[in-house]
Amino acid sequence: MSAVLDLACELIRRPSVTPEDAGCQALVAERLAAAGFAIEHHPHGPVANLWARLGARRPLLVLAGHTDVVPPGPAAAWHTPPFEPTVRDGFLHGRGAADMKGAVAAMVVAAERFAARHPRPAGSLALLLTSDEEGPAVDGTARVVETLRARGEAVDWCLVGEPSSEQRLGDVVKHGRRGSLNGTLTVVGVQGHVAYPERADNPVHRAAPALAELCAARWDEGDEDFPPTSFQISNLHAGTGADNVIPGELTVRFNFRYAPGQDPASLERAVRAILDRHRLRYRLAWDPPSQPFITRGGPLLAAVLDAVEAVCGLRPRCSTGGGTSDGRFLAAAGAQVVELGPLNATIHQVDERVAVADLERLAEVYGRIIETLLAPG
Amino acid sequence: MSAVLDLACELIRRPSVTPEDAGCQALVAERLAAAGFAIEHHPHGPVANLWARLGARRPLLVLAGHTDVVPPGPAAAWHTPPFEPTVRDGFLHGRGAADMKGAVAAMVVAAERFAARHPRPAGSLALLLTSDEEGPAVDGTARVVETLRARGEAVDWCLVGEPSSEQRLGDVVKHGRRGSLNGTLTVVGVQGHVAYPERADNPVHRAAPALAELCAARWDEGDEDFPPTSFQISNLHAGTGADNVIPGELTVRFNFRYAPGQDPASLERAVRAILDRHRLRYRLAWDPPSQPFITRGGPLLAAVLDAVEAVCGLRPRCSTGGGTSDGRFLAAAGAQVVELGPLNATIHQVDERVAVADLERLAEVYGRIIETLLAPG
Ligand SMILES: [Zn+2]
Ligand SMILES: [Zn+2]
Repeated sequence: MSAVLDLACELIRRPSVTPEDAGCQALVAERLAAAGFAIEHHPHGPVANLWARLGARRPLLVLAGHTDVVPPGPAAAWHTPPFEPTVRDGFLHGRGAADMKGAVAAMVVAAERFAARHPRPAGSLALLLTSDEEGPAVDGTARVVETLRARGEAVDWCLVGEPSSEQRLGDVVKHGRRGSLNGTLTVVGVQGHVAYPERADNPVHRAAPALAELCAARWDEGDEDFPPTSFQISNLHAGTGADNVIPGELTVRFNFRYAPGQDPASLERAVRAILDRHRLRYRLAWDPPSQPFITRGGPLLAAVLDAVEAVCGLRPRCSTGGGTSDGRFLAAAGAQVVELGPLNATIHQVDERVAVADLERLAEVYGRIIETLLAPG
Repeated sequence: MSAVLDLACELIRRPSVTPEDAGCQALVAERLAAAGFAIEHHPHGPVANLWARLGARRPLLVLAGHTDVVPPGPAAAWHTPPFEPTVRDGFLHGRGAADMKGAVAAMVVAAERFAARHPRPAGSLALLLTSDEEGPAVDGTARVVETLRARGEAVDWCLVGEPSSEQRLGDVVKHGRRGSLNGTLTVVGVQGHVAYPERADNPVHRAAPALAELCAARWDEGDEDFPPTSFQISNLHAGTGADNVIPGELTVRFNFRYAPGQDPASLERAVRAILDRHRLRYRLAWDPPSQPFITRGGPLLAAVLDAVEAVCGLRPRCSTGGGTSDGRFLAAAGAQVVELGPLNATIHQVDERVAVADLERLAEVYGRIIETLLAPG
C-alpha cells in the first residue's frame, strides 16, 4: 500500500458523519507533529478544527480541507460497507473517499515529504481541517480564519482539496465560486372565505405576475469567469390546508447565485424594483450571504496549473461552477484561493470512490505546488 | 315565553357540535309525532337524520335544516356560555341561535300549527333534519335524499331555513347557489441542486406565468342570477424545506364557484387550455363537485316572497351568493329550492344571536308559506 492510500483508509475507517470528526484530526495532528508542524486544536461546540503550521514567515500557503462526511444512507445500498475502506478494480471505496478524505491524505503525505526535504522553507506551510464543512459551516473554517485574523496571521495562498475534477484528475480546477444569497419574500393579502373573494385579497393571485417576472428576469450577463446570476425559488407556501379559505400570506424562499459584480444590496434593489412595480404588499428578509470570490492569476494559480500539467499531462480548465465551499472564508481574509481535488462523480452518493492511482498522483501534484511556492531559493 | 323561543332554547341547550345531534332530533320527533307526522330516523355512522312526514299525497313540501352547530371556540370569549340560551336586550344568545336552531324551532312550531289546522292537507308536509351540515355533508341530507329517491318519494318544493337575511328579517332569500369545485394541479419538474439549475427544471418557474393567467382569467360573464365564475387558489406548495434544493413538483389546490352555465367538464377544458398553452407537464385531479342550482319562479318562490311581504312588510331580494348549502341535494333530486332564515351577521362567531321578535315572525312566515302551498282548496 502507498502512504496516501494507507492514510486515506485510516481516515475512512473513522465514521466522521458531520459534525463528528471521529478522531481523524488527532491522527493527522500526530503525523504532522512528527513532521515538525506546530499543532493547534480549535474546537467549537461539537465541531473539531485543526490548525497545523510549519514555519513562521510569510508567504503562508494553507492546504484546506474537511474531515467530516455526509451521511452514508442505508448501508445495505452500498456494495461494501461505507466505513470499511475497500480497494476493488483499482478504486478505493468508502464514504469520504472522494469528498474529501482522499485529498486530505494526499495533502498530509505531500506536507510530510516537503517538511522532510525542507526543514527551512521559504515561507510557511499550514493545514487547516474542519469537521463542519458538510454542515452549517458556522463553527468550522470561518472560526479558525477569524482567530488567525484576530492575531494577525495573514494567509497568502490557500489550496482547497475539494473534488474539482470531472473526467480526469486535474481537468478542472476552481479558481473562484459564485456567491449564494437566500431570501424570504412574504406577500401579504387578506384571508377570507373562497365564497366571498371580494372580501379577501388573495396574495397568490396578487403575486403570480411578479413571480413570473422574477423567474424570467435576467439579472446580469456574467463575465468571462462567471455565468449570469441565477435565481431559483426553493420553497413556496400558501394556505391553511382548508379548501374554503383564501390564504392571508404567500411565503417564497429563494436563492441567488451571483458573481462578484453583484452584491446583496444590488440584488435586493433589483428584487424590490419588480415587487414594487407590481404594487405588492410584502416583507423581505435575507440570510447572511456566502460571498463570491475569484483568483484571477497570481503565483498560486500558476503553480497549480503547472503542477497538474507536469504530473497529469493536461492543462486544467478554470471554473467557478458548483456550490459554495470553505474557500470563501479564506478569500474573504485576503488569500488567493484555488481548489483542486479528485473526480467528483460519486460524491455524496452510495459507493463513493476514488481511483487509487489518482490518490498518489494528487499527492505528487500537491507536492509540486508546495515546492514551487515554498522551496528555498 | 313564546312557543318558538321556548323550543329554540331547548335546542341550544343540547350541545350538538357537528356531527353530534345531542338529542335535538329526538325532541323534534316527539313533537312532530304528537302532531301526526310519521317519524323516520336515518342514522349514518355518527350522523343523525330525521325524516318526518305528514300526508302521503303530492305535492310534497319539505322544510329542511340541521341540528348540528360549529364549535363554539373558547367559552370564555362568550358573554354568556354558548350552550346556555340567554335572552338579553331582545336577543336570544347561544351557539346555533341563528344557524340554525332558531329556524328549526320556527319550522317545527309552524308545522305543528298547520297540522292542527289541516288534518287533511292538499299534499304533504315533511321536515328533514341532519346533524351533518356543518361537517362533510356526506352522511346527512344527501343520504336521506338518496333514500327518498330510491323509494320513489318525490320532493316538489324545499324550503331551507339557513340564515339568509342580511339587515332585516326576510330582506334576502336565496333562490339558488353557485356550484363549488375543488381541484388539485400538480406541475411536474425535475428536482435538483440550486447551484446547478441547468440540470433541473423548476416547476415553480415553469408554472408562474400559467398561474398568473389562471388568476387573471375571466371564465364567463355570469347571468342575471349569478355573478361570473370565480377562481381562487386556496393552497400552494413546493419545496423540500431545504434551501439548496430546486423542487421537483408544485402543488396547487384551487376552487371554482360557478353558475349553472358552467359545469366541471367546461371548467376543466378551460383550465387545460391555459396549462397546455404554457406547455406544462402536469396532473389534474378533481373532487366531486357541489352542483349549482337555481329556482327561477314557480309556486314555492312566489309563496316565499308573498309571505315575507305580508309578515315583514318588505319584498325580499333574491340572491345566489355565499357558500353551498344542503339545498343542492334537494335541487339535484328535482325539487324547487328556496332558502329563508334569520340574519346571518353573527353566525359561526362568538355571541351568536337572533332577535326574539324575528323568531316568532319567522314561524309566521313559514306558516303562511305552508298554508299557501298545502292548505286544502
Ligand atoms: Zn467536500
Ligand atoms: Zn347552517
